[in-house]
Amino acid sequence: MFRKILIANRGEIAVRIIRACKDLGIESIAIYSQADSKSLHVKMADYAYKLSDDPIGGYLDIDLIIKIAKESGAEAIHPGYGFLSENANFARKVQESGIVWIGPNDKVIANMGDKNVARALMKQNGIPIVPGTDPLNDKTLQEIAEIAKVMGYPVIFKASAGGGGKGIRVVEREEDLSESFEACKREAKAFFGNDDVFMEKCITNPRHIEFQILADSYGNVIHLGERDCSIQRRHQKLIEIAPSPSIDEGLRKKMGAVAIAAAKAVDYVNAGTVEFLLDEYNQFYFMEMNTRIQVEHGITEEITGLDLVVRQIRIAGGEILELEQKDIVFQGYAIEARINAEDTSSDFAPNPGKITTYYPALGPSVRVDSCIYKDYEIPSFYDSMVAKLIVRATSYDLAVRKLSRALSEFTIRGVKTTIPFLQKICDDSIFKKGFFDTSYIPTNLPHLIPQEQKDEVDEVAIISAILALKSAEGK
Amino acid sequence: MFRKILIANRGEIAVRIIRACKDLGIESIAIYSQADSKSLHVKMADYAYKLSDDPIGGYLDIDLIIKIAKESGAEAIHPGYGFLSENANFARKVQESGIVWIGPNDKVIANMGDKNVARALMKQNGIPIVPGTDPLNDKTLQEIAEIAKVMGYPVIFKASAGGGGKGIRVVEREEDLSESFEACKREAKAFFGNDDVFMEKCITNPRHIEFQILADSYGNVIHLGERDCSIQRRHQKLIEIAPSPSIDEGLRKKMGAVAIAAAKAVDYVNAGTVEFLLDEYNQFYFMEMNTRIQVEHGITEEITGLDLVVRQIRIAGGEILELEQKDIVFQGYAIEARINAEDTSSDFAPNPGKITTYYPALGPSVRVDSCIYKDYEIPSFYDSMVAKLIVRATSYDLAVRKLSRALSEFTIRGVKTTIPFLQKICDDSIFKKGFFDTSYIPTNLPHLIPQEQKDEVDEVAIISAILALKSAEGK
Repeated sequence: MFRKILIANRGEIAVRIIRACKDLGIESIAIYSQADSKSLHVKMADYAYKLSDDPIGGYLDIDLIIKIAKESGAEAIHPGYGFLSENANFARKVQESGIVWIGPNDKVIANMGDKNVARALMKQNGIPIVPGTDPLNDKTLQEIAEIAKVMGYPVIFKASAGGGGKGIRVVEREEDLSESFEACKREAKAFFGNDDVFMEKCITNPRHIEFQILADSYGNVIHLGERDCSIQRRHQKLIEIAPSPSIDEGLRKKMGAVAIAAAKAVDYVNAGTVEFLLDEYNQFYFMEMNTRIQVEHGITEEITGLDLVVRQIRIAGGEILELEQKDIVFQGYAIEARINAEDTSSDFAPNPGKITTYYPALGPSVRVDSCIYKDYEIPSFYDSMVAKLIVRATSYDLAVRKLSRALSEFTIRGVKTTIPFLQKICDDSIFKKGFFDTSYIPTNLPHLIPQEQKDEVDEVAIISAILALKSAEGK
Repeated sequence: MFRKILIANRGEIAVRIIRACKDLGIESIAIYSQADSKSLHVKMADYAYKLSDDPIGGYLDIDLIIKIAKESGAEAIHPGYGFLSENANFARKVQESGIVWIGPNDKVIANMGDKNVARALMKQNGIPIVPGTDPLNDKTLQEIAEIAKVMGYPVIFKASAGGGGKGIRVVEREEDLSESFEACKREAKAFFGNDDVFMEKCITNPRHIEFQILADSYGNVIHLGERDCSIQRRHQKLIEIAPSPSIDEGLRKKMGAVAIAAAKAVDYVNAGTVEFLLDEYNQFYFMEMNTRIQVEHGITEEITGLDLVVRQIRIAGGEILELEQKDIVFQGYAIEARINAEDTSSDFAPNPGKITTYYPALGPSVRVDSCIYKDYEIPSFYDSMVAKLIVRATSYDLAVRKLSRALSEFTIRGVKTTIPFLQKICDDSIFKKGFFDTSYIPTNLPHLIPQEQKDEVDEVAIISAILALKSAEGK
């Protein structure tokens, strides 16, 4: 096993990885920008190296990070999520430098990162993909209309080189086809320097279902069940649930087998996620494969009892996966709520600043992964997520009520957070019943935004800040 | 289901029960002494009623507590552990007042509370008990010596009405028999007003293994596996583990079946614990049955995924246990470490006082049940336990390392705690291997006591208190 690992990331995922290193008796090496010099990951790691003054650029500086890794004696690099975690060039250079990359190899990262290549690979291997075309730029409008008619409206035009929600046009009717196609091409050219555009069937109001995969270097591949990530706002996941409240055992088996086939099709190694769209007829389609640990991995850990980051490190260290599919037993339900420092009443604008009170939820069924502490100043340069609150219970119903209880205990003052908004979701009857798809947040947003969010500076003891003081008899 | 429950307890178990009430949508009613007016359980409950000024007496005032319950509209009373939780008279009066008692009925409590009655009941029902006699007061010394000879030394004299470690004499050789018998009788008379003394075979260096039972009002009884509580100092449990690292599946099945038989023998209803002594030849003997929730119930929750306090309330509310033994699946290992405000260098003397810094361990695999907060002043009248730190993992080995990691993050300042002592146990090779019995702490105590325990008053930010600040490159 490794003696030292460099963590090429920051914030809560860096803290998460440091904890896994400690559990394995491995020394951890942090990197940090000037803006992050007081971050928890810097304080918790055994060693910490400063990057450039550029708050973002430093974490993307491939050559410097590899240089630090070499100089500090790191035997492996864990990229976390975001930043360079899906950068094939970084993965390749790390491997070339003789350092172990904790993740799949760079070719797999590159292939899964290109949506046309990924679609083609999956199609070749019999994995269901959303019906779609190759780039249409050499087709006439009449030919395109014919294809759309066969496919059935609505359809979507997508930039081949696209990503991040750019270069996308949904077309409801044939009359809008021409204009949307031209607009999509222009946007594709502008954003990605490439005006190739293809067409896909638009799956309306799908559920977002993803399967967690674990694969070792010896061809052993298992899945750890699914996560339902349908509670999204503008493609940002807010709440994730494992297992999905709307998938039965038969569908789980079917989708799980396809997820394993997808991983095997690309000789996948390490932890990964196969994302599917699931339509209202329970037809599912490969969407993409994430070649890294995901934010929401914790709920899978809760229902399987496995530590995924520990597994990632062990697999990268050459260990054989001793688990077979039949060994994976799912226990109950787990739900994650992402607590972001955002002002929900101002279109979820980031709300960085100094934490004046911090009192995480505790107690039975509750897990908190966080990177903040009292008096910490959240920098304005990074993702606004400051904590992941995870609960588990035997049933979905009880898990929702435990989440509500834990949110009511969770106290962050000094910045505005999504806690009151998440609490509103917990109290909502549709969410409580588990009947939702990706249209849930767009449809229900108006009544889920809390009326007013106080941001009092709190000078009294933490506990008085959490709960109303009841000093006399009765309430 | 109930609308309101009164919690006849304080501290962490009161907080634990309030959380379960919230999970079930039930209002909670706290009671508190003057000394506890700033306690977390008072702040978290929906209603809180003050008892007398007597810090202990109030929590034992049966009539006043029932009066408060009636007046406040409580439909049920949860007694927690300690205080009146095993007081048959209280249980009877609660039931007579028309309020539901969350626990077994008063006759079961009375029978299991009297060690001779409990032994006799178990013996009648074929449950193995430690070989022993009825009271010996009418026997001659020669007759007693004959019995001891057949039993084999060492033997123990025990006061029939005894408890709390009083009225006990271990006898290693026949020469000491007479003196020990007379001394035990005198102590029994002095402490319990009854000089009846009986003799038991002394099981040397046993493991303390207890089985968690769940039984509903309709005769359904299951066990939730065992907890190994052999890590004890002076009969006080320090660390508990589920499952026991030294029990195999065959023995677990055998002991579990006996535990269920013991519960059925007394028509047990609700959660309960059957405690066994397990000797070096894997022979096990019924020791006692605890007719309440136990401090260490959380580790069973972690490996089974069940919420035991929620189950207690539901069973008391008349719900049928929908689980059969085959539904209980154990997932990995869980370990609990009890964090006490004690000075380990002064014979574990209680160390009450004001908490100046409180930063509980967080993150994957970690659960904290606690009743303290920053600026809380621990009263001097009560049990010194201030937090229960629970970890879980797939293997015993990994669970020990996770416990060590979590202890290293757990920060309490202002009072001395057992955290450094627990850390020493985690680092000890015998504990790491899982090869221990109840002689472990007495034998190893000298090298487990930390050298020096600083009690700095900490004025800087919490985080600086936890972890050494590393501001420059490298460490």
